[in-house]
Amino acid sequence: MLSVLSKMISVKEALKIVEENAFIPKVSEVSLLESVGKVLAENITADRDFPPFNRVAMDGIAIAQTLDSFKIETIQYAGEAQKSLQNPENCMEVMTGAVLPSGCNTVIRYEDIEIQEVDGVKVAKISIPLSEISQGQNVHRQGSDRKMGDILLQKGLKISPSEIAVMASVGKASVKVEIPPKVAVISTGDELVEITANPLPYQIRMSNSYMLSAALDRVGVKANLFHLTDDKEELFIKLQEILANHDILLLSGGVSAGKKDFVPEILANLGVKKLFHKVAQKPGKPFWFGKTEEGKTVFALPGNPVSTFLCFCKYFLERRNEVVVLDKDVFFKPNLTYFVPVKTYFQDGKLMATPFEGSGSADFANLTDCDGFVELPAESQVFKKGEVFEFVRFRF
Amino acid sequence: MLSVLSKMISVKEALKIVEENAFIPKVSEVSLLESVGKVLAENITADRDFPPFNRVAMDGIAIAQTLDSFKIETIQYAGEAQKSLQNPENCMEVMTGAVLPSGCNTVIRYEDIEIQEVDGVKVAKISIPLSEISQGQNVHRQGSDRKMGDILLQKGLKISPSEIAVMASVGKASVKVEIPPKVAVISTGDELVEITANPLPYQIRMSNSYMLSAALDRVGVKANLFHLTDDKEELFIKLQEILANHDILLLSGGVSAGKKDFVPEILANLGVKKLFHKVAQKPGKPFWFGKTEEGKTVFALPGNPVSTFLCFCKYFLERRNEVVVLDKDVFFKPNLTYFVPVKTYFQDGKLMATPFEGSGSADFANLTDCDGFVELPAESQVFKKGEVFEFVRFRF
Repeated sequence: MLSVLSKMISVKEALKIVEENAFIPKVSEVSLLESVGKVLAENITADRDFPPFNRVAMDGIAIAQTLDSFKIETIQYAGEAQKSLQNPENCMEVMTGAVLPSGCNTVIRYEDIEIQEVDGVKVAKISIPLSEISQGQNVHRQGSDRKMGDILLQKGLKISPSEIAVMASVGKASVKVEIPPKVAVISTGDELVEITANPLPYQIRMSNSYMLSAALDRVGVKANLFHLTDDKEELFIKLQEILANHDILLLSGGVSAGKKDFVPEILANLGVKKLFHKVAQKPGKPFWFGKTEEGKTVFALPGNPVSTFLCFCKYFLERRNEVVVLDKDVFFKPNLTYFVPVKTYFQDGKLMATPFEGSGSADFANLTDCDGFVELPAESQVFKKGEVFEFVRFRF
Repeated sequence: MLSVLSKMISVKEALKIVEENAFIPKVSEVSLLESVGKVLAENITADRDFPPFNRVAMDGIAIAQTLDSFKIETIQYAGEAQKSLQNPENCMEVMTGAVLPSGCNTVIRYEDIEIQEVDGVKVAKISIPLSEISQGQNVHRQGSDRKMGDILLQKGLKISPSEIAVMASVGKASVKVEIPPKVAVISTGDELVEITANPLPYQIRMSNSYMLSAALDRVGVKANLFHLTDDKEELFIKLQEILANHDILLLSGGVSAGKKDFVPEILANLGVKKLFHKVAQKPGKPFWFGKTEEGKTVFALPGNPVSTFLCFCKYFLERRNEVVVLDKDVFFKPNLTYFVPVKTYFQDGKLMATPFEGSGSADFANLTDCDGFVELPAESQVFKKGEVFEFVRFRF
């Protein structure tokens, strides 16, 4: 069996190859709200200072100097052009978000004053010790957060709601982002039937392609789903067509030592260059990864559901760089990186992980109790309670 | 000022009131793939055993007893009806995913055998010590993961890709889920202009409604966006109409002590019962929350962007029950729960948090360096490096 003879590489090497050969996404301009969750493909700079003017930060009065009481000249509302205090011994009522009136430098909030009417004139009296008032308080100074021309957001970051706020504030109604690749999810295996079918005793309903499609949906990728039978001719014709219309292929099944595991051979015939086949890991050892001359990538994942999912989470999804602390010992003899489904919880500030070894790579019902996989390195055989290991989260 | 006199409640009390008065979502049946990220509204039971038959777990040979070598009778492929081993001294080649042939109980993988042709008959010879073969190995026994009739998924859980796989496998082409509420996001404030506008010196572009809308999008809710000016009549007419057409309203601005902060009064006039106004927290103290007789809820959030966002993340988003360890001391005197933006990272299995106090509740550019808020309780004034506190994540 040729595939058995293939060089098996480490998880670290495999990840490095996948990252170095990642499909290079296209860049496109989308509307601001469409950009959330995507990768920013331009720097965003401040078109004005942040804030753009000396901004009143509390509802109250603006003053020029600290006195016991002040005549109120008028009101400066948010959204109004800047007014001027006429007499530095007076004050002006000011509303949060307004420009600080010219001639003023400090704001005292309503909670710290009393407003009275004296001889038909409105007067604000300070109701706290004057020593508690500090010059400049409750004024959000122009440019104190960012200066005009500053780079606010760097190309390459993943856009979250706070970045949306920043881009809205500088008027980015549309923004350049990396657009999601066109992904095909393809299950193989003659034992699989449609989810609407009533399976015969030796058949099962397909689940991998739905699982992968749902996982892609969670990261903003709409995938096309296909199912192919274990037939060389069908595989060749259909995969050729699918490859022509997509950027990334995610296959499940057909990559192991079975007599109908034609996927690696067919991919080679289609000009997909094998970058590795077989990784020193459990589950997911038969994982095959390759690339076309145009830079399209093919992830041919083992068909057991836990293997499929682990490979997808570990090699396809963005790295999250999380770790967990094992809460009980695990023993694993083979010289393979062992990915164990875990349920996580916090204890004393630590992210603890309870391993659920389940009954192996086909036991996907086991995953519904878990949040991710702990990654136990190939070099050890005993993994002790309290030790820290990398974590591959799949529920977020 | 009436609002100043309102009873200020604790963060804990506020959260309890919000949770007890949460909008009760409607249930609807959606296609399997549409259900990901939503809350399951029915129990899912196993229609067959998991796995549904004694399933071959490795490519290799199936045997009835452990011998040195076996004649190969035939091949049992995945997706084929079960075959029978004719002679218990022979074996059958079997492929992963196939039914275990009747008469067999154990599978030996190809890696551990050699296949030779002897007198025109294919023979499999065991190439490992026989003592390493254990009866029943590499067979995934029928019902070993779950039994027919078992509840696989409980009503109320959030559907992730692994639950999609489970539901696919039991033929749930459509599934009952809680459907997202109809949410309106409404900004108020006369200083705000559209993001496409060129603001005058005393104006700023609106950002809160885009931030909230993007955050809602991340949790599967498509919101409608509105902007209203600080005008009582406009607020009354427009809010009445918006309330009629939505389940939940998220307002920002107009809830503090300012002279144009009409939102609480208008909501009361529209029959929205105030459940609280003002929470002992910084930022976000003026947060107002209420409910209509029909059970619609109104979150009237303070207009400063960091306040808006904190209140949204803390009170609207699902609780994640995460904690962080402070990596430097924080001092905060007022008797308020203090939410500080933090940047998190892992160290020795602990999720560490570096506080970024920034320049207050209007400094939303500060959030782009952070992942969430650490929640520092009102009862203390000194929060020491190494102490553990609750964490409100906003980047996930």
